[in-house]
This record gives sequence, C-alpha cells and structure tokens, in this order.
Amino acid sequence: MDKVRIFDTTLRDGEQTPGVTVTPEQKLQIAIKLDELGVDAIEAGFPIVSQGEMKAISDIVKQGLKAEICGLARATETDIDAAIKCNLNYVHTFIATSDIHLQYKLKMTRDQVLDRAIKAVEYAKKHGLRVEFSAEDATRSERPFLIQVFKAVTDAGADRIDIPDTVGYATPQYIADLVTEVKAATRLPISMHCHDDFGLAVANSIAGINAGAACAHVTINGLGERAGNASLEEFVMALQCLYNRGHNIKTTSLYEISRFVSNTMGIVVQPNKAIIGENAFGHESGIHTHGILNNPLTYEPISPELVGRKRWLQAGKHAGAHGIRAMLEEFGIKPTEEQLHAIVEKQKNMADKGRSITTAELLSVAGEVMNSSQFEERFKLYDFHIVTGMNIIPTAVVRLNAEGKDLIASEIGVGPVDAALKAIQKIASDVSNIKIREYKLDSITGGSDALAEVIVKVEDKNGNIVSARKANEDIVVASVEAVMDAINKVLLKKVLFTKPD
Amino acid sequence: MDKVRIFDTTLRDGEQTPGVTVTPEQKLQIAIKLDELGVDAIEAGFPIVSQGEMKAISDIVKQGLKAEICGLARATETDIDAAIKCNLNYVHTFIATSDIHLQYKLKMTRDQVLDRAIKAVEYAKKHGLRVEFSAEDATRSERPFLIQVFKAVTDAGADRIDIPDTVGYATPQYIADLVTEVKAATRLPISMHCHDDFGLAVANSIAGINAGAACAHVTINGLGERAGNASLEEFVMALQCLYNRGHNIKTTSLYEISRFVSNTMGIVVQPNKAIIGENAFGHESGIHTHGILNNPLTYEPISPELVGRKRWLQAGKHAGAHGIRAMLEEFGIKPTEEQLHAIVEKQKNMADKGRSITTAELLSVAGEVMNSSQFEERFKLYDFHIVTGMNIIPTAVVRLNAEGKDLIASEIGVGPVDAALKAIQKIASDVSNIKIREYKLDSITGGSDALAEVIVKVEDKNGNIVSARKANEDIVVASVEAVMDAINKVLLKKVLFTKPD
Repeated sequence: MDKVRIFDTTLRDGEQTPGVTVTPEQKLQIAIKLDELGVDAIEAGFPIVSQGEMKAISDIVKQGLKAEICGLARATETDIDAAIKCNLNYVHTFIATSDIHLQYKLKMTRDQVLDRAIKAVEYAKKHGLRVEFSAEDATRSERPFLIQVFKAVTDAGADRIDIPDTVGYATPQYIADLVTEVKAATRLPISMHCHDDFGLAVANSIAGINAGAACAHVTINGLGERAGNASLEEFVMALQCLYNRGHNIKTTSLYEISRFVSNTMGIVVQPNKAIIGENAFGHESGIHTHGILNNPLTYEPISPELVGRKRWLQAGKHAGAHGIRAMLEEFGIKPTEEQLHAIVEKQKNMADKGRSITTAELLSVAGEVMNSSQFEERFKLYDFHIVTGMNIIPTAVVRLNAEGKDLIASEIGVGPVDAALKAIQKIASDVSNIKIREYKLDSITGGSDALAEVIVKVEDKNGNIVSARKANEDIVVASVEAVMDAINKVLLKKVLFTKPD
Repeated sequence: MDKVRIFDTTLRDGEQTPGVTVTPEQKLQIAIKLDELGVDAIEAGFPIVSQGEMKAISDIVKQGLKAEICGLARATETDIDAAIKCNLNYVHTFIATSDIHLQYKLKMTRDQVLDRAIKAVEYAKKHGLRVEFSAEDATRSERPFLIQVFKAVTDAGADRIDIPDTVGYATPQYIADLVTEVKAATRLPISMHCHDDFGLAVANSIAGINAGAACAHVTINGLGERAGNASLEEFVMALQCLYNRGHNIKTTSLYEISRFVSNTMGIVVQPNKAIIGENAFGHESGIHTHGILNNPLTYEPISPELVGRKRWLQAGKHAGAHGIRAMLEEFGIKPTEEQLHAIVEKQKNMADKGRSITTAELLSVAGEVMNSSQFEERFKLYDFHIVTGMNIIPTAVVRLNAEGKDLIASEIGVGPVDAALKAIQKIASDVSNIKIREYKLDSITGGSDALAEVIVKVEDKNGNIVSARKANEDIVVASVEAVMDAINKVLLKKVLFTKPD
C-alpha cells in the first residue's frame, strides 16, 4: 500500500490556536524542523491575514525545503493573489458548503458557493498553482450538494480534495462512508482534516485513511482552533503500530519537535498526552513497575526510544519493592530485603500524606534505614537574602557550604529566582564544575499562596544531567531547594533514569 | 436503549498517574463531587496499597453516596480481604491473561491463571461482594484462552465482565469484534477499560458500547497510567451528541469537576483538550469569530453552557474587524468604521511581532486611535519593594495611586508574590471594594530567565469577575502587573466575555 501522506498544518491551523502568535523567524525554525521530521507537506500559513504572515511564508518558500509548501486562501482572487505574492506554487483554497455556514456566515446561496468554488480553482490553476480544495464544514453539509461541489472543482482542475470535519462532529463510521462516496465521485487523492472537539480526531483521520483517503492534515501536539486538530504524533504512531501503514516520518524526532513547538508557541502539553506527554512512558504503580523491569512491553505498547524518549520510574504510594529496588540500584545502593521493606513502608507513609516522593527524599529514607552517610549532602545551604521590586535590580546573596568550604556569592538577575539561581550557580561552577541547564516551573492554580513545583536540571563536567523537583509555597524557596537538590544528586553521579523530580 | 453506565476510576487508575498522590480527605471530596456529577460507580482505590488508601476508601463507603463504590483487588484472598476490611460490597478483581504478562510478570501457566481467577471470584462471592472481573491486557491475550477465562469466572458467579485495553493497543474494529464475542460467551454486562496510548481511548470505548458493552471505565481529564484512560467528559459528550445515547451525567458540572480534579491532583489540562481545555470554546481567527457572532453553531459543535462553560473571543493576528468590534462593545466602546480599521491594523502589527494581545492592550490601542481618555487607568503603580529569602519573612511594600489617592501598604506573605499581592489587595479592598479571587501562573520552561505568564482574577462589590494576564521575565513583576491590570479592568465594569488574559 502507498505511504500515507502527512500534511502538517501546525503553522496554519496550529497557529490559529487562540493566544498563539509566532514571529516569522520562529515560523521558519518550525518549518525547518518539520522538514527534517519528514512531513510531506507544510501548510505555512494564511497569507491574507497580515504582512508579517506573508513575509513568514515567503521566507519558508525561499528556504527550498524537501516538503511541499502550501498556503491557505479563501475562494477569492484576493486571497489567492496573496498566496501567489508569497511565491507559493501550492494553495489550499476553501469555501463552506454547510447550510448553517451559508445562511449565517457567508450569506450566500448554494449556486453562489458553487460558482465561487469553481472560479477560485480555475483562477489558481490559471496561475500555475497546485490546488487542494476544501469544502469547509463538509461533515455537516448536505451530501448531494457536497458531492456536487467536489465534482465541479474536480472538473475545474483541482489536484486534491480535502474533507474538513470543521467542528469535530463526525464519527469514524460517518467519515468512512463519506470518503468512499467522495473518492468514487472525484477519483482525486483525498485528505482528511479532523478536529478534536469530542476527542475523536485521530480515530476519524484513521477511518478516512482506511476508507481510501491518501493524506491527513495534522499538527504537532494536536494544536489548532478550539480543541485542536488530529495530533501528528498520535496519528503517525497509530498508523505504524496498529495498522502497519507506511509514512515518511522520522519517528525518533517526534519528542524533540513536540518540545520545540510547545516552547515556541507557549502551549503546554499535558502529562497524560499520548506519545509526547511527560507521563506517556512513566510508571509509578508497583504492579506496572514490576512488569516493566522484567519486560517493558508488559506495560508499554511501544518502546519509548521509537519516539525519541526514555522511560522513567517514580516512588510513591502505589510503588512496590521491585520499583524501589531498581531506583536505588541506579545510585549503586543495594539494601537487604529487610531494609528494602522498611524503605518501601516509610515512603508509602509519606505518600499517604498526599505528597509525591522525590528521588532525593527516597535516598534520604534509604540512608536513614540503612544507617549510611553515603547519601549525605555535599552542598548545604545556610541562607539566602533577596531584594527586588520595581525600579530595583533583583539581587540575591547566598551563603552555603560547598564540598566543605563556606562560601558567599551575590548576583543580579531578571527576577528574584534568576538572581538566586545565578548566585548558586556561580559557586557550583567554581567549586564543582556544575552548570544549571534547565529551569521549569509547573503551572500554579488557586491563589498566590498555592504550592509551586519547580524542576531544575544540572550538568556536571562529564555531561551527566540530573534533575530535581521541589515544591514550596514560595517560588524562590522551591527554586533554590530544587537546584541544591539537583547539585547534590549529580554529585552522587546519578544517571537519568528515574523521573525528573 | 439503556443508558450507558459510567464507572469512574479517577480515584484509582487516575490516582496511579505517576506523581499524583492525594490525601484521604481529598479523595473523599472528589468522590462527593463525582456522585453529584451522576456517575453510576466510583472506583475509590486499591485497598492493598497502603493504610492511607484503606482509610480513604472506608471514609468514602461511610459517606453513603448514591453511586456504587468499588475497590480494586488482584485475584488473591489478601487483596479481596483488604477490600472487605474497607466495608466495600463491590470489588473489581483482575488477573492478566496475555502470554507476555504470564511469562514475564506473573510467571504462571495458563492453568494457574485460570484457577486463580475462578478462586478469587468464588472467594469474593462467598463474602457477599458484587464482582466485576477484568482480564488484564485482554486485547493482547490469545482469544480462545481469554474467552475460556471469562466463561469460567461467569460460571464462578462474576456479576460483570471488564475488558481492559491495558496498553491502549486496540483499534475500534478489534474492540467491536471482541465485545461481540465476549458478550455471546458470557451474557454478562460488559465494561470497557481503554487506555489512550495512541489517542484512541474514547473511540475504542465507544466502539465497545456500540457493539453491546453496557459500561465504560473513565476518568476526569483522562487521568491514569501513562497517557491515561478514556476521558469521562469526552466519552459522555460524544455518546450524547454524536450517538444519541443516554447517561446519568449532569453535563453542566463537567467543567467545574475538571478544574477541581486538576487542581487537587496537580495535573494540568492542556488548552487544546476537548470539552474542558481552556481553548475548547475560545476563538481568535477573524473567520471563526465572524461566524460565531452570527451563530455560534457555525464554529462550535455544542453550546459551551451545556458543559458549564462560556465562550470567549481574543484579539490577535488572525482576528478580524467583526471580532474586534464585538470585544470593544463589551466595554461600551463603539468605534467608527474608520477607527475600527485602524485598531485592527495596529493590533495585527503588534501580533506580527510574536506577541499575544491582551484586552488591556486592545483597549489601550482603541483609546489611542479614538483619542479618548475613557480607558485611563484608575489604579497606577508607582513602585514596590520586596525583601525575602531563607529565615526571612517575605515582605512587600507597594506605593500606588488608587482612584486619585496616593497610598502605601506593606504586607507579609508565604513568598514574594503573595506578599506583593496582599499589599495591593489591602489598598484595592479599602478604596474600591475589590478582592483578588484567583491567581494562576502558566508553566515556565527553559531557564530561570524565561517569560512567566500570570493570570489574576479580581471581583468587585457587585460580583463582577474579570481577569488579566501579564507576561514578564520577573514572576513578581508579572504578578503585580496582572493584578493592577485586572483591577483597572473591573473598574471599567467589564463583563467576563473576552478571554481571561
């Protein structure tokens, strides 16, 4: 069977995510990464919306990527002209065909819509463009009229037909029937464009492919209007693993591009998101951890490396002896059976109080039970002071013991957290050649006195990266504690296997 | 047709989300809310895992809720005894049936598994429990053996059969075939328990229901192991809206419980999540906003009120004149056509620089274009100072002009942000009877100098709630600016229609 064509619309429908705006430079960076990922087509934007958008699309066209570059245009000469001005040779033009859109939005009759669709396709073809035609709101359009429009644009020279499920209202069975009918009527390659308003975008896209569609419009992280579009990563991995269908995506880059797009567009990926969520290959419960340690396929459908990731385990209420033993072994700690039992019990008691258990805490419990000083902190914080405000340069002073030496450092920063971390980093860098590599703060909801959770990654001179997580009502304190914890962990020469906590 | 039974496992599989631990008190609060939502059954936990878990389950049983309360137990007497100790009269017992689980995890033969399953069901029935039996990893189990186990436990007295797609590996077609066969073999009510590793959990649950299953195991926000379980909210709304199936869920409470569980368990919901994500009923693009203003059904599959929400519009690069006009009208601002055009152009230029446009900024642009002082700030910040650190009580001093009066206030807090907001709130409360109602900080990824985005909600004496969003590299500055902006907005008597920015 033919490979499934991947048409990525992260830069068009994805950028229409409310609140998301990226600069032309950022659009180009994302386009280059999408090309490296192996997508077959990139919808680079919607030229008519602004001057900046036109510049961004032109820049992407100039880049000479392997992927086809496409731009969106309403079925009007003005919009198609804007696409031509960007030097695009591939346009995705659309007009709505559902009665609700005709009556309330377009205020046009069916004959007028039909006429507009034909003229737009003819105009684009006359200018030498490849044309993908979408009947917006296709899945809520009256079937005979929809087919009439698709047939007419086929006769007008359209190269591809796209079926958008504009408000995510279709079911897989409905999509399958529709694709079968459209394919028979047009004999053109068909694309699916499914929205996720009921959580069915991936299932609907697959139903379309199974019924004979050649392509799906997808986005990184499932970004897009409202609940978003079908996720590229879920769609591609489902095709490959569950349906044995080919594609051109380099799956080992999926996680990296997901992180890049999330950071650039500022839209967070929830931990429980398939393939790319933080938890997708994370395990806490004792039964699952036990299975994973014997054979990862017991509780993972695919190997995390296939999508550029690593699995991780975490302590907690549901953790059992097998998982805790494996985590301690990461640090070269080998408790006896009796000690292991005591460690598991102690950490369950902590978890019952509603706290998640960090690796440092697990080590501390182990040190206590095993009566060992092996896990003693090599960086100890005495205190820190911060002055900040408006028209004041945020300044921090820290006093700590680093590998036996009492030291003081002062630094300024863009804010109080930055100043404090820079001061600690100064000492850590001088004394132990350790650098802070990443800072992450989980979202806070509730009040200004709600718990803040911070994750800090540090790297030692040998390139070992470890992370630590701390929670505190005071963001600065949580940040300082997390970085101190991470420094102590990397000094224990921990490898990154357990959860970034 | 019968109503579809909703078996909620937020408190069991959902709590197994790595890193999530809730106290017995929090579990009880969630159980009460699930009961009010109308779920038919609540899986309250896994009794054997800890003492705290047993206490939590016992407390929920004692509460006398309308929903059936269930506990998880491996197919052993010890686990079932733990369930009995919690005074449960309904147990969900399981044992794996796939070869990979038998070989690598259980290290048991098929005969041993069959024997264990039968004995567990018999033991539970002997103790008067209702029994739901799960064959773990059912979808990767050899079919004849799976059917043999299901038949045997049926004969042993099981009341319900659950089919878990433990690693989310099934397709809708596979599920449909499997349910048909299991139903014919057992004639018992069947539950689906689908995981979302390929984004198909909701589609698979629905495929099961359409093939004759009576019930689905679901979780609020799709929490659960790895990528999580089928989302209650997506499953229920899809059943109702796309398949015309009945259920007992009070859908208007879906958003509220989603927020409560997200806050309690500390797992963020991504903006582009169906039904409950921040963007699910948010619109920015001009075409969409134009349609929405004429008839919301053009670009929304359902009314947001149906799930306890409101729609919102936002300015931005893709916004058009219709949307901007509607947003300004919210504030009683009526620009001429010419002014409107100038406002739209100005805000698109801002957006092209990669910035999202806040409502305050839109108002400021409008004020500039319309040459009006109508939108002038009534609270003006002069400066603030903060002292914080370790062994120092975080203290803030703010100096501002409130409705014409120059005032100074000082407060302490749990951290620098809390102290600053408390000081501002003191003045806002005294002068204008305004209270800070909510504080939210978006997650920060990158470095300690990355941009922090803060949303603050304030409420005036008439109960008008408005929110404002601000971004700054300094978390304290972003927080202070957001609260000042929100105060100014509520003093403009804004209603909450536009996006919480």
